Amino acid sequence: MNYGIVIKVLGNLLLIEAAAFIPPLLVSLIYGEKALMSFIYSILILIILGFPMSRVNITDKRVKAKDALFVVFLGWIFVSFFGSLPFVFSGSIPSLVDAFFETVSGFTTTGSTILGDIEALPNGMLLWRSLTIWLGGMGILVLTVAILPAIGVGGFQIFKAETTGPIAEKIVPRIKDTAKILYVIYVGITIIQAILLCFGGMSLLESLIHTFATVGTGGFSSKNASIGAFNSSFIIYVISLFMILCGVNFSLFYEVLKGRWRNVLKNSELRLYLGIIAVSTLLITINLNGKIYNSIFETFKHALFQVSTIITTTGFSTVDFNKWTDFSKSILFILMFVGGCAGSTGGGIKVIRLLIMGKIVRREILKLLHPKAYVPIKINDRMLSSDTTASVSGFFFLYMVIFAFSTLLISLEGIDLISSASAVGATLGNIGPGFELVGPAQNFGFFGIPSKILFSILMLLGRLELFTVFLFFVPDFWKNS
Amino acid sequence: MNYGIVIKVLGNLLLIEAAAFIPPLLVSLIYGEKALMSFIYSILILIILGFPMSRVNITDKRVKAKDALFVVFLGWIFVSFFGSLPFVFSGSIPSLVDAFFETVSGFTTTGSTILGDIEALPNGMLLWRSLTIWLGGMGILVLTVAILPAIGVGGFQIFKAETTGPIAEKIVPRIKDTAKILYVIYVGITIIQAILLCFGGMSLLESLIHTFATVGTGGFSSKNASIGAFNSSFIIYVISLFMILCGVNFSLFYEVLKGRWRNVLKNSELRLYLGIIAVSTLLITINLNGKIYNSIFETFKHALFQVSTIITTTGFSTVDFNKWTDFSKSILFILMFVGGCAGSTGGGIKVIRLLIMGKIVRREILKLLHPKAYVPIKINDRMLSSDTTASVSGFFFLYMVIFAFSTLLISLEGIDLISSASAVGATLGNIGPGFELVGPAQNFGFFGIPSKILFSILMLLGRLELFTVFLFFVPDFWKNS
Repeated sequence: MNYGIVIKVLGNLLLIEAAAFIPPLLVSLIYGEKALMSFIYSILILIILGFPMSRVNITDKRVKAKDALFVVFLGWIFVSFFGSLPFVFSGSIPSLVDAFFETVSGFTTTGSTILGDIEALPNGMLLWRSLTIWLGGMGILVLTVAILPAIGVGGFQIFKAETTGPIAEKIVPRIKDTAKILYVIYVGITIIQAILLCFGGMSLLESLIHTFATVGTGGFSSKNASIGAFNSSFIIYVISLFMILCGVNFSLFYEVLKGRWRNVLKNSELRLYLGIIAVSTLLITINLNGKIYNSIFETFKHALFQVSTIITTTGFSTVDFNKWTDFSKSILFILMFVGGCAGSTGGGIKVIRLLIMGKIVRREILKLLHPKAYVPIKINDRMLSSDTTASVSGFFFLYMVIFAFSTLLISLEGIDLISSASAVGATLGNIGPGFELVGPAQNFGFFGIPSKILFSILMLLGRLELFTVFLFFVPDFWKNS
Repeated sequence: MNYGIVIKVLGNLLLIEAAAFIPPLLVSLIYGEKALMSFIYSILILIILGFPMSRVNITDKRVKAKDALFVVFLGWIFVSFFGSLPFVFSGSIPSLVDAFFETVSGFTTTGSTILGDIEALPNGMLLWRSLTIWLGGMGILVLTVAILPAIGVGGFQIFKAETTGPIAEKIVPRIKDTAKILYVIYVGITIIQAILLCFGGMSLLESLIHTFATVGTGGFSSKNASIGAFNSSFIIYVISLFMILCGVNFSLFYEVLKGRWRNVLKNSELRLYLGIIAVSTLLITINLNGKIYNSIFETFKHALFQVSTIITTTGFSTVDFNKWTDFSKSILFILMFVGGCAGSTGGGIKVIRLLIMGKIVRREILKLLHPKAYVPIKINDRMLSSDTTASVSGFFFLYMVIFAFSTLLISLEGIDLISSASAVGATLGNIGPGFELVGPAQNFGFFGIPSKILFSILMLLGRLELFTVFLFFVPDFWKNS
């Protein structure tokens, strides 16, 4: 292990987090909130720790895959831990376990909360909560890669470990440039949405809080009733649109900017993703029509919003979908296992993995008929290696196994199966709310400390896409080679 | 397609089914039941149809994979349809859809029932219900292969399509002999269990009904309270033992008979299977201890029985496990997705598939560390081809997709998610009872006709292990090649 490079990257990461505390600090300053001091203390701690770490002299410039993976793993735990300090210092969330849960939930873009009364939080804290989502969405280490001087092959490994989906691809040859392009697109989308929400009647602060939570597909709101509190169809449709956009592979936005529309329209993951949203919205609209809302337009609006929020794993809500019919709830439950597209800020299993699994099934059926035929698996006209298909299969199985065993552990809390299963599904898939006791009108505050720690681990597992985390429990990893 | 051979095999199958009606006919004769006539009519119909079909002159002796798969598919639908006739004729189950459901449930060794009052059935019908399980357990077409004159390569294809698990293996070089050996072992186990149950105080008829339902891992009982009605620890332990035995790969019994104990003890699927049973029983015993039953021995007994009945997909019960804690219920729910070993009479996903998937996951994690290493996947010291692992992955995914979409369709009945999900899991996995509205003290009678048809399809899908059924909806299948 190249510990020098590990420490140096982590040091830079802590300095970036210190810088990220400045916007919420300013908000607390403007609103004259006592929370101001907690940000100052947190910044001081990060600088005292981060500055010397970032100055470490690196003798060995070689970065191996395992160094990069270790940086990503430790990096996420570090930012989550130090990111929770302002909550504890300010007394907004006195318990460290709760504060850690909330911060992990932000950085992993989950959006599950332990807070019963969100509106009681100081404005600075509300902004920080949403800012963690924004930082975690595109990847806080990808940001480090974009800013740091080139660290060679290690940069790509870090990018690969933090980017979502089974196949990490550089948009441009240099990884540093790829990271920069992604962040430029990300900032662009953020600015456009923030302006639109201000148009829709939100204050600048509210607009930023909800924009950060949308583009990072995290779903923290400043209101107890989430987006439902704004009672504005314009806001609901704008957020629906941006959730759907941010569930799309960001490299497709680059294609659009370059005018390569064909590549976008032919993208099979995008088509399936939009198809699932359309069909699910339609089915729920038909199923709920005339049952709960006054008009079919109201029903459609809420159906589209809730479908978008679950499939993109954002986790906002405009209504309490716990009160929907079992059929409509079942659709949302299934969508919890879909997730956004690869290379988006969305969590979950990802549409492309389901697409690949579907093609594996198709091949198996054809093989029964032509036992000796060679049937390749293609996505967007490119053939996938058997390594990729095996990796996707392994991911899907591991996801289900973690889901099953975590549900079992949570059921020890003595709560019903739907609550425990959906709480696990919502954290592992980085979604936010689940059903019943963890529905959109409820929160995770009532769980015991062991369960909250398990949920925090599940959120990290989901965000880092499982394998990266398990690696450190393989004895081989710790052997010198 | 070689239609000649298809018709000939189906004809023989119908004649075998006609012969299978004789034991229940005799029971109805002995007990002086009116149901006697319904068996006679059914036999006549089968002979009128089956005899000419079995006499078809075959000009083309070549049997291709697709012919064999088609025979198996049609064969299962034929026996289920004609097997339901006595229920309809006798008025025991007047609705044809209900009778078909009940018969499919038997042949597929599921054991889900639409009957509210089982004890109201004539004895002949009770025996026929359990006999369908016994016939379906080892495979009614495997029986045909054992009895028919050799049909060349087709015999192995039929065997492969009907035997459970991802890898079909001949015990001895000739498939006809393999089928015979399997049936000899099957009959042997049946006789031993029947004698033991008589010792335990059951009448001969009761003993046969429960033995057929145990060794076929189907779980139809002659009592409304299932095995709980007998109130005998001896019977409970005997049935637990035989359920566990019949969830084991039958080729291992052949190894035992040949004295090759090493092969048995080293079998990794067997070890995992027994390990899961031991751990699950232990966890439930600890979890329920002092909560429901009088002593830890009582708790252990019921835990072992319920774990065995779910993992082997039998579906008997000694207690209403709906009333257990959420933790213990969650364990049973997870076991619904395990199933027995390959080559057993048990249903579900099968232990070996989970074992293979686990090894795929392990390989993926190791590959992160050593990206260029070649890590083979071995089961019992034999390397698996990438074809086998891909097939297992595809199976697992397809199983989950069918589970999710069927649950969605069933939820249109307006019932809770646990009831609909467990009803689907119980039928697709050939288990029998589920939770809540389809718990062990309930039945499937209240569902609408479309749902009952869907359940019947799910049971067939589960028994024929998915791919075989989907094949017929691939346009390629119907092209001449």
